[in-house]
Amino acid sequence: MAEHAIVGVDAGGTSTRCVVAALDGTVLGCGRAGGANQYSSPDPAASLRAALDEALTAAGGVRVVGSVFGMAGASEAGHARATETATRAWNALEMPGEPYVTDDICAAFAAGSVADQGTVLIAGTGAVAAYVRDGAVAWRCDGDGWLLGDEGSAVWIALRGLRAVLAALDGRGRPTALRERLAAALEVPPGERERIIEAVYPRHPAELGLLAPEVTAVAGEGDAVAREIVAGAADALLASLTVAAGERFGADPVVLAGSLLSEGPVADAVRAGIRARHGAVPLRASEGALGAAALALRWAGSSLAARSTLLRAGLPPAT
Amino acid sequence: MAEHAIVGVDAGGTSTRCVVAALDGTVLGCGRAGGANQYSSPDPAASLRAALDEALTAAGGVRVVGSVFGMAGASEAGHARATETATRAWNALEMPGEPYVTDDICAAFAAGSVADQGTVLIAGTGAVAAYVRDGAVAWRCDGDGWLLGDEGSAVWIALRGLRAVLAALDGRGRPTALRERLAAALEVPPGERERIIEAVYPRHPAELGLLAPEVTAVAGEGDAVAREIVAGAADALLASLTVAAGERFGADPVVLAGSLLSEGPVADAVRAGIRARHGAVPLRASEGALGAAALALRWAGSSLAARSTLLRAGLPPAT
Repeated sequence: MAEHAIVGVDAGGTSTRCVVAALDGTVLGCGRAGGANQYSSPDPAASLRAALDEALTAAGGVRVVGSVFGMAGASEAGHARATETATRAWNALEMPGEPYVTDDICAAFAAGSVADQGTVLIAGTGAVAAYVRDGAVAWRCDGDGWLLGDEGSAVWIALRGLRAVLAALDGRGRPTALRERLAAALEVPPGERERIIEAVYPRHPAELGLLAPEVTAVAGEGDAVAREIVAGAADALLASLTVAAGERFGADPVVLAGSLLSEGPVADAVRAGIRARHGAVPLRASEGALGAAALALRWAGSSLAARSTLLRAGLPPAT
Repeated sequence: MAEHAIVGVDAGGTSTRCVVAALDGTVLGCGRAGGANQYSSPDPAASLRAALDEALTAAGGVRVVGSVFGMAGASEAGHARATETATRAWNALEMPGEPYVTDDICAAFAAGSVADQGTVLIAGTGAVAAYVRDGAVAWRCDGDGWLLGDEGSAVWIALRGLRAVLAALDGRGRPTALRERLAAALEVPPGERERIIEAVYPRHPAELGLLAPEVTAVAGEGDAVAREIVAGAADALLASLTVAAGERFGADPVVLAGSLLSEGPVADAVRAGIRARHGAVPLRASEGALGAAALALRWAGSSLAARSTLLRAGLPPAT
């Protein structure tokens, strides 16, 4: 008889990852595909199906007894649509039962901690903090997108960097090394205000997050303007985290996820801030697909040890 | 023989206005048409031609001896294209000579003062400050658009109002009456974060400036959060103005233009700030088309009295 296994899926805007794991936490198979964000990806169900198919094929003959899909935009208003998309991919592969669909925020928390509840702070292109309980978001701060929020995110940092360059050029702001660095990244001559504006507006604002590493690098080199932007990002992220955690800060685990919080000056400042304000040491999230799989293991009745084994395993490198 | 006359045109994103005036400053005809912004309007040359045609027809048989077109986006990189568009409309009506094309910023200054040089602060949907000399922009601060600047503009105020509502809803910010007012303006129930986000993102950010009057109204009613936004807008506008004016602040005239600076709490705070910081009393700009016409009169050799007559006249109401 085939081995009992669970499935975990993490579906974001640019990629989808799927893990098949045994009930003892051993990774049996892994699959990757394009994005499956229901608002921005061309065919989310096809991406989910491709990642699932690859992981199940790699795992060989297993009997799936549970699954969790952590999907971007699956909270609140987007939940019904995300569930429909996930179910379509699931049924297309003739899988038994129904997938459990939750927010990718919950998968990120579960990728850093096996606790039932706690706080997660995610900062990459966007930024959100949430208090998570039993695989669901209990309270959420920010995550309001590039125009209305995502304070402290890569897009937020990049926009502040660009505004600082324009202010330096017209005399409103102080001189900054960002002037040369961001012009080079945009492939325009430094000091030409109009060329910067022309280079920025045709892009989708979410793409501008790619400029954030330039700002954090210049901050690391000591530029005062860039350092203030980085400090402001860390403050904004800490403020969201503090409100999301509420009175439980320090009692429950805190998980950090997203590219900005893995390393670099924003990650350093946020970690230092959490220690200073709350005496807590944050955990680092592993892959979101492992977090989704860990939730599936928990609901399949696996032990804490099995879930810890899974999270420590990591994903095999992409082939 | 037909009367000698000049033509002034103000071309913005949503409307184009044209004035034909005699050399003594008497308005002979007026024309209006849709927007003629070369970046956003569907057919700028057609709008220019329609407004010109209406004004010239109303003026009757005149001999045009000069013209000034104040066009949004006609500074720096956009100047060649704006000149080409204006010239096409001009030639289509078989007008003599060539139109003089300048930025609508210069037309706004000339609509408030007959001086050769001075500072203008414009705040409507966007925001810009500039030092103007002889009908050209000598130094410009901000005007960098809704994403990268326009600090203190209607869009800037609206975005801050919306962010304050979202922050109040998730606990990051203080309670504010903006919660009910902006939800009503967006036609969504108050208190529903997702509905606000869904209502905002499909709109073009420039449209969001229409929410600014809600923020200024709530500020006028004493709401602390809205008052801070209004004070921040006034501070940002004053900062741009101060840098643009430079050492000449208080010596040269200062002209205020744009819907936010005609009346209301932002206008009041900016006027008070100019008086307090620089002891100067700002002038209020008339219609931009009259400013463009005033520049044309100046270059046609008309007297200061003729230009003052023109600016005092105002435009006849639209029919």
